[in-house]
Amino acid sequence: MDYSSLARKYGTPLYVYDFNEIQKNFIALKEVFAARKSLVCFAIKANSNLSVLKFLSDLGSGFDCVSIGELRRALYVGAKSYKIIFSGVGKQDGELEFALKSDILLINLESEAEMLRLERIAQKLNKPARISIRVNPNVDAKTHPYISTGLNENKFGVNIETARKMYIYAKKSKFLNPVGIHFHIGSQLTDISPICDAAKIVSDLLRELRALEIDIKFFDVGGGIGIRYEDEKQIVLYDYAQGILKSLSGLDVTIVCEPGRFIAGAAGVFLTRVLYEKQNCGKRFVIVDGAMNDLIRPSLYGAHHAIEIIGASEGINLNEPDASEVNLGSRGEDQTSGSDADQKNLGGVNLAETSLCDVVGPICESGDFLAKGVSLPSLQSGDLLAIKSAGAYGFSMSSNYNTRCRAAEVAVYDGQDRLIRKRESFDELIALEKDLV
Amino acid sequence: MDYSSLARKYGTPLYVYDFNEIQKNFIALKEVFAARKSLVCFAIKANSNLSVLKFLSDLGSGFDCVSIGELRRALYVGAKSYKIIFSGVGKQDGELEFALKSDILLINLESEAEMLRLERIAQKLNKPARISIRVNPNVDAKTHPYISTGLNENKFGVNIETARKMYIYAKKSKFLNPVGIHFHIGSQLTDISPICDAAKIVSDLLRELRALEIDIKFFDVGGGIGIRYEDEKQIVLYDYAQGILKSLSGLDVTIVCEPGRFIAGAAGVFLTRVLYEKQNCGKRFVIVDGAMNDLIRPSLYGAHHAIEIIGASEGINLNEPDASEVNLGSRGEDQTSGSDADQKNLGGVNLAETSLCDVVGPICESGDFLAKGVSLPSLQSGDLLAIKSAGAYGFSMSSNYNTRCRAAEVAVYDGQDRLIRKRESFDELIALEKDLV
Repeated sequence: MDYSSLARKYGTPLYVYDFNEIQKNFIALKEVFAARKSLVCFAIKANSNLSVLKFLSDLGSGFDCVSIGELRRALYVGAKSYKIIFSGVGKQDGELEFALKSDILLINLESEAEMLRLERIAQKLNKPARISIRVNPNVDAKTHPYISTGLNENKFGVNIETARKMYIYAKKSKFLNPVGIHFHIGSQLTDISPICDAAKIVSDLLRELRALEIDIKFFDVGGGIGIRYEDEKQIVLYDYAQGILKSLSGLDVTIVCEPGRFIAGAAGVFLTRVLYEKQNCGKRFVIVDGAMNDLIRPSLYGAHHAIEIIGASEGINLNEPDASEVNLGSRGEDQTSGSDADQKNLGGVNLAETSLCDVVGPICESGDFLAKGVSLPSLQSGDLLAIKSAGAYGFSMSSNYNTRCRAAEVAVYDGQDRLIRKRESFDELIALEKDLV
Repeated sequence: MDYSSLARKYGTPLYVYDFNEIQKNFIALKEVFAARKSLVCFAIKANSNLSVLKFLSDLGSGFDCVSIGELRRALYVGAKSYKIIFSGVGKQDGELEFALKSDILLINLESEAEMLRLERIAQKLNKPARISIRVNPNVDAKTHPYISTGLNENKFGVNIETARKMYIYAKKSKFLNPVGIHFHIGSQLTDISPICDAAKIVSDLLRELRALEIDIKFFDVGGGIGIRYEDEKQIVLYDYAQGILKSLSGLDVTIVCEPGRFIAGAAGVFLTRVLYEKQNCGKRFVIVDGAMNDLIRPSLYGAHHAIEIIGASEGINLNEPDASEVNLGSRGEDQTSGSDADQKNLGGVNLAETSLCDVVGPICESGDFLAKGVSLPSLQSGDLLAIKSAGAYGFSMSSNYNTRCRAAEVAVYDGQDRLIRKRESFDELIALEKDLV
């Protein structure tokens, strides 16, 4: 992909998504469950851009939503209501009512209190609710604590015993129709064994429920398939599917899965340009025009994103050429080495000589970094960097901290690029407050 | 302050700022330097709401900006250009040009490269730039690593030696006018000794520069005065000022300071309502309608915010009354204790009996919490909580993660409340992408 052209055309910082990669990932997951009825529900929280959702919807994807906003996004792009599920620990009455009225496939319940609330709303609307219950199998997903969700000590789901009680209650209710069972033990998993363990525990409960004539049709295994940010072990999809299917032998259920990162993560890059290089007492900093407000994963989770040097962008310098290279003692002399002669040269960047640096943004706190202690060649103002695997939990977590306008988003499909979200403007930032001063 | 009424009137989650408290803090800081020429520049990044800025501007405050967006905010509310300073490690050419054209008081330089760039821009505009240089005194501020900025190992400022070289260079330049010197060693400081140490180091440099006939008029001590979130020691303003002034004896300089948190932090609360109470294997969760997208400090910095129980809001329940209290085994029976008879009762909440819990939001990750392991009474759906000291780095860091619309902001001054930022709507969230699908 020609990141240089895209950066010139749309400016930086910029999110770019490879729709062919999204398609490939979606199809791979769909196919691995081909022998079974299955529904892939993309987790909107990972990347909620409407064009991404529309593209996935056209491929046949369903959607996992966790707020009324995400439900509305899915419906906006024409998603089939019978392919939408609604999860989340803190659903409000208005959200439940909206979900019921929208006639979505399943509402995933996360507590007894929520079930009773949903029952009352369903009764009020005289519209039985199709439910599934999120079961917490108490399995350690061995991922970052912030995205680990399968242990009893976290806020998600209910334990097996509570789930059993809830199913029995729901079975008797006129307004609750228990048709699904759900678990999700965490995000960015690199090992299938916790998923297989969880599938076994939850499928045992499913068999028990069937014996009680509670006819569970949907077996929702959540999401969480990890991607390779650095050198993580990657889950083999076939093994993943077999590990789950092993628990389901003899059971006629539709498998639902909720991938977010797996579909969109590696399909996205975050493009940012170098503003300055700087040495502070021997420590090297590459200051770029992207920041923690654009991509908070490094700061929030200590996440690693590989960095690709795209090289100097011909004719584009955000700032005066070479200013970052000028030494005070010899002002005006060009200190760059004779890099044109170097065969490892990429757009003016000599890739052969690297040194450790932190890649940091312009935000005024030390927590604003995109990478720490990475080995990069000497860079000049205007050089372009691609922060890899930024397609999930990138833009969707972005903010306006430091009154920074959010980046634009671009899709590339079959070599054609198009803008899918405009760069935010200052006027848009103040729109909700300017008339109230 | 009547948080219940405000929550009813404006909905939750909601940011409420006490403008009297903001005024009190501003005046306290202004007065402690009364014997000297001084300029208090509010750090916009802490709370960038236009009405907050307008209020401070009317009090005589200047502004510390770290982006063109913040500059535009300050100018929008009518701030005097000669009271505006512009800091930040990654200023772009367009930002520097805008700052120069706006004729602001000072551009704080953070690197040699940036100085040369500014010089070229000033030359192009034929308009000399008033500069100050951010000196890194290599003092450990002993605060959270993400907000500690005074050590050489971080991206901010330049060391003494580099600063000296830069001042000498600037003195000779036709387009650079070195009139200020600046340091800022970190945020949320609870001890004055690092500030005093830094002031001593930087004032020594200032004296040296004066000897070289470099006439530094502004001594910018940055911000960083801590507030009490929990049981932190608090800086006594008088000691703070005296500690700084001690280094300046005999020097005729204007003291500039850049408080953000000190002015706005304790003046703000974040109001959120209880959605559900939930027990997971003995661990108690209070699920509220505010989340990490609204207030990320607990998740990002492990920050503590005290929680005040405002009590049940009469007539307002986000959800069906008592649903969260109903036990499956005894459905319909009201299990609340006879709390009306309890003298420690507050709007239906029995404050006498508390237990440990996590206060968490509806966002689908374990990192979404507002408090962990706090002792709270039993709460019901609709009960209102005030998350204290949320006036700084609260709304300004908020995002739309999970497609959650950002909270509204309200100001209260002399008992009068008014909306200062409208609650975001779904249509606003998708405005920049909906026509591109």
